[in-house]
Amino acid sequence: MQDLKSYAEEKVERARKVLRILSSIPTEVKNRTLLRAAELLDKRREYIKEENKKDIAFGESQGLSSALLDRLLLNDKRIDGMIKVLRDVASLPDPVGEITRMWQLPNGLKVGRMRVPLGVIFIVYEARPNVTIEAGSLCIKSSNAVILRGGKEAMNSNRALVEILREASAMEGFPEEAIQFIDRPEREIVWEILQMEGKVDVAIPRGGESLIRAVAEKARVPVIKHYKGVCNIYVDEEADLEKAYHIVYNAKVQRPSVCNAVENLIIHRKILNTFFPKMAYILGKAGVELRCDEDSLKVIKSDPRLSFVKAVPATEEDYYEEFLDLILAVKVVDSLEEAIDFIETYGSKHSDAIITENYTKAMKFLTEVDSAAVYVNASTRFTDGNEFGLGAEMGISTDKIHARGPMALEELTIQKFIIFGNGQVRDNFKVPEELLKEWKD
Amino acid sequence: MQDLKSYAEEKVERARKVLRILSSIPTEVKNRTLLRAAELLDKRREYIKEENKKDIAFGESQGLSSALLDRLLLNDKRIDGMIKVLRDVASLPDPVGEITRMWQLPNGLKVGRMRVPLGVIFIVYEARPNVTIEAGSLCIKSSNAVILRGGKEAMNSNRALVEILREASAMEGFPEEAIQFIDRPEREIVWEILQMEGKVDVAIPRGGESLIRAVAEKARVPVIKHYKGVCNIYVDEEADLEKAYHIVYNAKVQRPSVCNAVENLIIHRKILNTFFPKMAYILGKAGVELRCDEDSLKVIKSDPRLSFVKAVPATEEDYYEEFLDLILAVKVVDSLEEAIDFIETYGSKHSDAIITENYTKAMKFLTEVDSAAVYVNASTRFTDGNEFGLGAEMGISTDKIHARGPMALEELTIQKFIIFGNGQVRDNFKVPEELLKEWKD
Repeated sequence: MQDLKSYAEEKVERARKVLRILSSIPTEVKNRTLLRAAELLDKRREYIKEENKKDIAFGESQGLSSALLDRLLLNDKRIDGMIKVLRDVASLPDPVGEITRMWQLPNGLKVGRMRVPLGVIFIVYEARPNVTIEAGSLCIKSSNAVILRGGKEAMNSNRALVEILREASAMEGFPEEAIQFIDRPEREIVWEILQMEGKVDVAIPRGGESLIRAVAEKARVPVIKHYKGVCNIYVDEEADLEKAYHIVYNAKVQRPSVCNAVENLIIHRKILNTFFPKMAYILGKAGVELRCDEDSLKVIKSDPRLSFVKAVPATEEDYYEEFLDLILAVKVVDSLEEAIDFIETYGSKHSDAIITENYTKAMKFLTEVDSAAVYVNASTRFTDGNEFGLGAEMGISTDKIHARGPMALEELTIQKFIIFGNGQVRDNFKVPEELLKEWKD
Repeated sequence: MQDLKSYAEEKVERARKVLRILSSIPTEVKNRTLLRAAELLDKRREYIKEENKKDIAFGESQGLSSALLDRLLLNDKRIDGMIKVLRDVASLPDPVGEITRMWQLPNGLKVGRMRVPLGVIFIVYEARPNVTIEAGSLCIKSSNAVILRGGKEAMNSNRALVEILREASAMEGFPEEAIQFIDRPEREIVWEILQMEGKVDVAIPRGGESLIRAVAEKARVPVIKHYKGVCNIYVDEEADLEKAYHIVYNAKVQRPSVCNAVENLIIHRKILNTFFPKMAYILGKAGVELRCDEDSLKVIKSDPRLSFVKAVPATEEDYYEEFLDLILAVKVVDSLEEAIDFIETYGSKHSDAIITENYTKAMKFLTEVDSAAVYVNASTRFTDGNEFGLGAEMGISTDKIHARGPMALEELTIQKFIIFGNGQVRDNFKVPEELLKEWKD
């Protein structure tokens, strides 16, 4: 058997070899490839589901949690979702080759900035096989080569999906080697690839915090990532309370296990007694446990109608925590300033929202909260490439360089400078006239 | 004396503390600060030159090379240059707050992308004190906090320049703590700051390859950099030879010690005997040593008029080398394809040029050469923030993420998502009507 290092190198080498072809692949070839993959995926539902069953059976035998098994599952609805992603991405504008700006210098040089692919993208993810299609389709459309490394528990499902992407590529003239699949389970392969500075242009880990930390720590290649989503909603004294109930409920209860769910509810003191009892009632009925500061706990404990609500004192650590569960920490503040301070201290720069009818406070919050996505009067749950209209997402960044928030087509490109001249030289430093004339052919 | 770690932490902490203020500082305050600094710099020329003399004297006593002493020197012309940078940057548009795109989703949410500062930028540079003003002015204009760490040989000059930036800030209401200066020489301080993930948002090293490699290797914070500039010029068979002579001469001879000077000259075989003898003559007269492949060496050796030209066989290593000197490697190719292959193999993704009158070849070169700046019919020496009309530059990136080429105001910002809602929740998952009605205040 091939050793791990040469296995990893070979995958990367194969991907790099097609970068030149990718740099000028026509948009229509990319779109046809995506639509063909959608067609093949539709035709091969039974095969995909069979391969997926193998993964599920193996996962069950290994005692995977039902939450994990659910992520792993591919049913018709999820296959429909992947088909939609392929079609959506095909319908979006091609980011590559876009010249975002071009200007002329006094010397006549035309300087422009043109979007080009990043190169070789290494994506490391966990159980969800649909990431294979999201990442694959975004990389095809943005002319990048991608190295896909899904969780070992999804190996059969991912392999079947990759086959479809590669087959569609071969049929439509897109270089199939642009899609590389790590079909061996050893983690060492990941560490090897993360060392290949200059060969792998960026690594994007998606999954639990421990996976992402391991990738970030071991990588010599650039990594774009978010560790966790500690999202905050601040309900201002001038909030429309009706909106606040729905937004907080949506952000906490609809799907608590995801990174854009809310973890901290910040309440202005002036509405503590008007807003919070009903909010606590609603959340309590939905089975949410509240971890409260002193003032908010008092509200709950003093109202017998809220005796059924599970409420405990919050610790300092609770406010840093991504619960990923029906748990919400509650904090009372005296001002917008204090709310922004709180978010700066405890948040993870992912998604934060203010609920207010006051224009100036809304604008202040938008400007001063330093997070990837900042909301006024909407649920943090919208932070998602597809929801934002970007077709899909490669991941979400809470980093401060390259990209913030959901990464999609544009974020998989970078701008290079292109310069059109007609003989310009710097500082008019030219070959002296005499010297030019001395030489006779 | 304070220990190095707490010294480093204090500098970073002070910078971070003003980020909130910076997030909404008005453009006019920033512009007034820059113009005030220009004024102070003009008034204190004598003081600056005296401080600079201390550095020069110390440098001489340490036996610094004359090239290094020249970089260190601040004379009136260079002070004029710094004043111009401050004024130019003041006159440029403010990148912060720009909303580059905004769209409306079917549910009525308005999603936009707004440029915001990166946060705390750590710049590590070497002997040239004018970098203090370039970096300082760009960071002021882009609302970033900056930690300046210049070479220890320029300590007095840099301190005097930082005083001006901070004094101008205090006078105009810009937070002076946004400009932090490392006024101690120990290298360990640099390594400490490079560990502060989440506290320092990006590190930008400028200088020799060994400094940059050391920074990149030790950093836990993101680094944007270029290791070296191995720039290539390809003279196509359809080149206007007159343009080619001037461009190659400019790119090699004007200032060979900089990263955008040319190191490899690639020549199409069909013009080897028409173009190259005269080019070799011109370069030879300028004192350039040529490191030639077999075919180009033959041309020189077979023409007695070129006997004065210093020409030796090129080794494989020569083509990878950034000579930073009057040395040029020469390579003959049979096609544009081969030229692009050569650049991909030996270049450093910095700046590369094609000289041709053929439109299709020019466009192919622009598209397929994967470098930060790709030129048609112009000297690679233009790769520079000021030359490109960007006011100044923070550094040049040959990385593939965040920024490629000269980094100026826009590259010191990043786009965050801003979302304007009026109560939207995801998937229409709202508090059930009954539940809302159950609670009576």
